[in-house]
Amino acid sequence: MQNPRPQTFTSFDAPKRILLGPGPSDVHQRVLHATARATIGHLDPAFIRMMDELKALLRYSFLTDNEATVAISAPGSAGMETCFVNLVEPGDKVIVCQNGFFGGRMKANVDRCGGKAIMVEDEWGKPIDPQKVEDALEAHPDAKILAFVHAETSTGVSSDAQLLASLAKKYDCLSLVDAVTSFGGSELRVDEWGLDAVYSGSQKCFSSVPGISPITFSALALERVNHRKQPVQSWFLDINLLMSYWASTAKRAYHHTAPSNSLYALHEALLMGYEEGIENRWARHRENHLLLRAELETLGMDFFVEEAYRLPQLNAVRIPKGVDEAKVRSELLNEYGIEIGAGLGPMAGKIWRIGLMGYSSRKENIDTLAQALRAVLS
Amino acid sequence: MQNPRPQTFTSFDAPKRILLGPGPSDVHQRVLHATARATIGHLDPAFIRMMDELKALLRYSFLTDNEATVAISAPGSAGMETCFVNLVEPGDKVIVCQNGFFGGRMKANVDRCGGKAIMVEDEWGKPIDPQKVEDALEAHPDAKILAFVHAETSTGVSSDAQLLASLAKKYDCLSLVDAVTSFGGSELRVDEWGLDAVYSGSQKCFSSVPGISPITFSALALERVNHRKQPVQSWFLDINLLMSYWASTAKRAYHHTAPSNSLYALHEALLMGYEEGIENRWARHRENHLLLRAELETLGMDFFVEEAYRLPQLNAVRIPKGVDEAKVRSELLNEYGIEIGAGLGPMAGKIWRIGLMGYSSRKENIDTLAQALRAVLS
Repeated sequence: MQNPRPQTFTSFDAPKRILLGPGPSDVHQRVLHATARATIGHLDPAFIRMMDELKALLRYSFLTDNEATVAISAPGSAGMETCFVNLVEPGDKVIVCQNGFFGGRMKANVDRCGGKAIMVEDEWGKPIDPQKVEDALEAHPDAKILAFVHAETSTGVSSDAQLLASLAKKYDCLSLVDAVTSFGGSELRVDEWGLDAVYSGSQKCFSSVPGISPITFSALALERVNHRKQPVQSWFLDINLLMSYWASTAKRAYHHTAPSNSLYALHEALLMGYEEGIENRWARHRENHLLLRAELETLGMDFFVEEAYRLPQLNAVRIPKGVDEAKVRSELLNEYGIEIGAGLGPMAGKIWRIGLMGYSSRKENIDTLAQALRAVLS
Repeated sequence: MQNPRPQTFTSFDAPKRILLGPGPSDVHQRVLHATARATIGHLDPAFIRMMDELKALLRYSFLTDNEATVAISAPGSAGMETCFVNLVEPGDKVIVCQNGFFGGRMKANVDRCGGKAIMVEDEWGKPIDPQKVEDALEAHPDAKILAFVHAETSTGVSSDAQLLASLAKKYDCLSLVDAVTSFGGSELRVDEWGLDAVYSGSQKCFSSVPGISPITFSALALERVNHRKQPVQSWFLDINLLMSYWASTAKRAYHHTAPSNSLYALHEALLMGYEEGIENRWARHRENHLLLRAELETLGMDFFVEEAYRLPQLNAVRIPKGVDEAKVRSELLNEYGIEIGAGLGPMAGKIWRIGLMGYSSRKENIDTLAQALRAVLS
């Protein structure tokens, strides 16, 4: 191949959108400005100070004192993989709860680590049944880990992470928790609830730019890693290498070139969460969910999930009968600039997913969406 | 842990730097502006069009027609891991050339995939010796892969990728090539040279924001993946899942939330490379290297690498006798805002690494650096 330059390319011009899908959410101008700050080296003392603050902000946001609280330089699905590759050894039994799409991905991770996944299945749209989980823990006393999704992004259902983690502890298992959609949007208390390995994403309820995965490991989880018989199969996601990389100045070891600008963004986004206060943030998500619910009721739309288990930040609603759902989404996008989410996997064509996450969780967005839906569905 | 908010945090304000180290390089305002464009969803038709253009720009920049030419949503070290986890199966013999730091990291990757690394070692600062490589290929007829670093970021030495790839082919091995520092800065012709799996980084000679790894796999490499006996051990880096994710609209499958803003940046950075012309870009790096060389000679400084093998984009120079090297770097950074690189591993205290990569490769930076060095060393 020579040097043909046959094609014409132009700078990408992002269209104006209101992001009310399952993520990413709208990114605040403060965070976008932070993203555009000049790139500096990852060994620059100023950058290292920023990383130290970022760790403190992550601990605050997770409500944890865990030393191993860092940001993986890759999206939430790599955060998931970080938890599994470090904690699962070949042959290990892992109890995996599945009540939606992301529980299935957890199983794929266990398989690829050579572990044995024991599935505890619940219907999509229902929370994880703690009784089934306890039955599985009892039936498999040699299980090492209980893995579950706190807030299922595919269905908008919340499970009782505190209760599930206490069951894990009772049966001497580590809890491995997907908090991608809960982090920053609904109650999540890593230390108080005794969660052992937790991962999330930057782009949901903290509304940073996508591509970074905050994680936290308890001392117990780290101890498990340090007693492995075999090395962690991933070099890039090895938690001990990552801890050295995120260590304070004197002990830092080179690992990879940090995604500087995405970390600037996360720092600013978490700072905005810190200014708001984490509990106030949860309350805001809850209040806006109630406003949306009222609007959807006047439109005659039903929620997919029973009231007690609904995530305020991700509202799964049944598609009204006789409606061409793809056409509605396309009209919302093209005529109103509003993105809402389709159903994933078996939920396709059955539900829409309306996200009110982070900076997207605002009254004006609810008003705009309600007006647009009224027009499009009429 | 309650909700203490005991600490005071402020928005991060990146200091003004001129990045003349081993990467990241200075990011042009056009690229920073692109990074700050509003985040949109990864399923938005406008975003998918941008990804299609990005693939075309990557193919142009790599000089390849490979279908499997995509951007990994993580830094270059994850690009390295992508190549190894997809191509190496447990028990596979891999010939790994090591003439610097990153050859060692390749070995770590082979080990973690359960492969057997056959090391071909050359002194740091010397190019890979093709005769030793051929001897190893002859001695290990069952080897599956020849892995080497095209442009060693730790020493500034270039090896003959075309010749090494032809040896790999002669002995029925795939070539697996680290082009982190060569991509966009010195001659790299994936198709013409017959390279099978190549990875790079966004932040070196294309001067995008750090955190993304462009990769390309030949049809032969893909065939190897598709004949694996065991699944790829990484879910996040599985090339077949990634290909579905980067497929054209109708065939796209959800994989992870794209790092939208970092991809905007890479699109713009590659577009700037396209406008310049890839061969002109290589020539510019070469010309500025010669200007730097002239300046360093007037300062009485020696290159670490023999002239024929010097990388124009990464200049390793011996630290003059009697100089406190850390103090010099610190003065350059704090008084002149210039970052240059220290030696890595066994090179610490022996060399400095002066990068002229991408947007950093400009005459005015060479002048500024020469003046600053003259002042600091006097």
